[in-house]
Amino acid sequence: MGIIVQKFGGTSVADVEKIKNVAKAVIREKNNGNQVIVVVSAMGHTTDYLVKMANEISDNPNPREMDMLLTTGEQVSIALLTMAIQAQGHAAVSMNAMQVGIITECNHTKARIVDIKTEKLYSHLNKGEIIVVAGFQGVTPDGEITTLGRGGSDTSAVAIAGALNADRCDIYTDVEGVYTTDPRIVPNATKLSEISYEEMLELAHVGANVLHPRSVETAKQYNVPLRVRSTFKLDDLGTYITGVDNMEIYKPVAGVAADLSQIRVVICDVPDEPGSAAKIFDALSKSDVSVDMIIQSYGRNDGTNDVAFTVSKSDYEKTMEIVKNVIKEIHAASVLVDEDIAKVSIVGAGMVDRPGIAASMFKALAEEGINIKMISTSEIKISCLVEKNDAHKAIQALHSAFNLDAKEVAVVMGDLPDV
Amino acid sequence: MGIIVQKFGGTSVADVEKIKNVAKAVIREKNNGNQVIVVVSAMGHTTDYLVKMANEISDNPNPREMDMLLTTGEQVSIALLTMAIQAQGHAAVSMNAMQVGIITECNHTKARIVDIKTEKLYSHLNKGEIIVVAGFQGVTPDGEITTLGRGGSDTSAVAIAGALNADRCDIYTDVEGVYTTDPRIVPNATKLSEISYEEMLELAHVGANVLHPRSVETAKQYNVPLRVRSTFKLDDLGTYITGVDNMEIYKPVAGVAADLSQIRVVICDVPDEPGSAAKIFDALSKSDVSVDMIIQSYGRNDGTNDVAFTVSKSDYEKTMEIVKNVIKEIHAASVLVDEDIAKVSIVGAGMVDRPGIAASMFKALAEEGINIKMISTSEIKISCLVEKNDAHKAIQALHSAFNLDAKEVAVVMGDLPDV
Repeated sequence: MGIIVQKFGGTSVADVEKIKNVAKAVIREKNNGNQVIVVVSAMGHTTDYLVKMANEISDNPNPREMDMLLTTGEQVSIALLTMAIQAQGHAAVSMNAMQVGIITECNHTKARIVDIKTEKLYSHLNKGEIIVVAGFQGVTPDGEITTLGRGGSDTSAVAIAGALNADRCDIYTDVEGVYTTDPRIVPNATKLSEISYEEMLELAHVGANVLHPRSVETAKQYNVPLRVRSTFKLDDLGTYITGVDNMEIYKPVAGVAADLSQIRVVICDVPDEPGSAAKIFDALSKSDVSVDMIIQSYGRNDGTNDVAFTVSKSDYEKTMEIVKNVIKEIHAASVLVDEDIAKVSIVGAGMVDRPGIAASMFKALAEEGINIKMISTSEIKISCLVEKNDAHKAIQALHSAFNLDAKEVAVVMGDLPDV
Repeated sequence: MGIIVQKFGGTSVADVEKIKNVAKAVIREKNNGNQVIVVVSAMGHTTDYLVKMANEISDNPNPREMDMLLTTGEQVSIALLTMAIQAQGHAAVSMNAMQVGIITECNHTKARIVDIKTEKLYSHLNKGEIIVVAGFQGVTPDGEITTLGRGGSDTSAVAIAGALNADRCDIYTDVEGVYTTDPRIVPNATKLSEISYEEMLELAHVGANVLHPRSVETAKQYNVPLRVRSTFKLDDLGTYITGVDNMEIYKPVAGVAADLSQIRVVICDVPDEPGSAAKIFDALSKSDVSVDMIIQSYGRNDGTNDVAFTVSKSDYEKTMEIVKNVIKEIHAASVLVDEDIAKVSIVGAGMVDRPGIAASMFKALAEEGINIKMISTSEIKISCLVEKNDAHKAIQALHSAFNLDAKEVAVVMGDLPDV
């Protein structure tokens, strides 16, 4: 008998019938002989509906009150799912974040979990009860209600699994697992049966929407084995995400992803003085603007550099305001913004051991006539910034170049293009 | 500067526009120089919608989970109202029952308040903030979420006012105050400017829907002056409800009301032995059936009595089950049920000092050919059970007989029919 944490997102509990189906999936795991904790999100469009009302009342709703408002969505879900489990004859109990003790810092709308109390959870589990916990929400030591921001419910589930040292955390969603790339772009994208935390993390960061990087980071930190699987195909085991040590196969390239949510900002003719770049990125970070790729050109003869970086489209206005102030301060010439960009990435834990992967990537893109605007690399990821119009073509080319088209990814990896 | 508690019901916060209006009413009281606490119910039909989903999931939803579900309704209201107050430029903070510390017993769906913590409330008031509190809900010392049952939000407001020793508790509603009788039945029913707790309590118990008796009881207990007033006519002061000692005028009859929600049960031929009646009412009370009027006939020569009583229609099935068992035990002959009844009552604190009020009532009913089936009296109330079809006619006759038709109730009282 083990402890299994299951997480079901908003589409999985969108209506009463779907909630009844989720109850079946929960009971199935319980009948397998496990102790089960279920984490759920708000029903379907509940959050959108609540946000709409808030926006009708205020142009700039107070973050504390937004948290008070939005946390009701998950509380509705846990009550209804618990009733559905009980109606199918099993003991169950719902708990909101305050009742569990999901303790966060007091940073409304994007709080981070600092502690999870396990006493009440164990007490209910030991009574044989299925526990249904509200995802996405937390409470500060002072009793203030917080939400965890993007990827919140996944993070709730993984953090609870970590706190209880659970045997597995199953993230149920509307896709069947993690794919080598977006199946809507590359029809013969294949589902990965296994992937490492690190690879998943990079894939998540570069635009694969299956899991928020934050939940993967938490899983990695607490070494919680994750499974991404479909709510609607319970017999399908989905994709297993675990530490590299636990994995049988290292793949040089596990997946390809594109991120179309960024813009590129170029600050031209930045005087080549110590601290110029620091001033730019310090100002951005103080305003909570998260910068992704950064490239600084080699110093030119005229004693200036160009500094280019990418930020999320949603930070566009804030970024421009900051940058316009900073360029005066550092005596840079001007700012260019490019909105029509895409970041295309390949990810694979096996990359470290194989030389030439980067070269293969650049070659594959060049053969399609795709111009690379910026490059960034990590140990297990290479990202290239390209024209937005080239994004689909780039993904298809890379998926094909690294032989991800085949059904058995693990096998094909040996046939990597010789570089 | 005083402390004012305001309470707004579901119709007052039914949509975003109405919430903005409520914010105005709140700020108006703040601008009068008062410290303000607002208690709100769930928006319009939210509760019905949640109950509907629960019933689709389970024939018999677990009471604990119902409380978990329904308390979200008030939490949505407090967040939105707080945003609306803030949007109009005033400092405000929302608090649910757990945050305030509205401590109840652990009796789900009908918990009673045992304590209200005032520390956080005072702390926010002293910062000049308007506090918006979720009505209808409580929390047990163990952190279980409860609801207060019928009349819950009014009771929350009054109890908070009591705990803070507030100067007044204003119950805003969709009527303009307390009337001498239901204006839908008697068009020239008049609004009372003042009424005592005791009279209001009797009126509430006999079917006036303005305030739940529970909230009036609480107000009386803590000596909290209440005002019932309209959300939509803020300049109208409504009806002031306070202790008899504070009132200028004693009226023999303050109002007339009818209650059509009861049924009459008659147990025939109950052997005239000690303890027979006790067995009946003990069994009913153990099953939480609340009995209103009770009449036991004089003992007959054959050594039996008839015992008649009224209960709420909603307890019909439970009552019949209990009674069928009890009549075997006490060897009574049979049970009769009469569903087509109405309880018509006159209420007035001045009744004690004036003889003949009862006789006037019976005479007024007799003149209309209305048959009286049962009578019960208290110090400030006389109730008659009549045929349901006679209810309207009875109310009109009584309203007229006690000269409540006139605009100035206090004056007309002197013209009471000589009896």
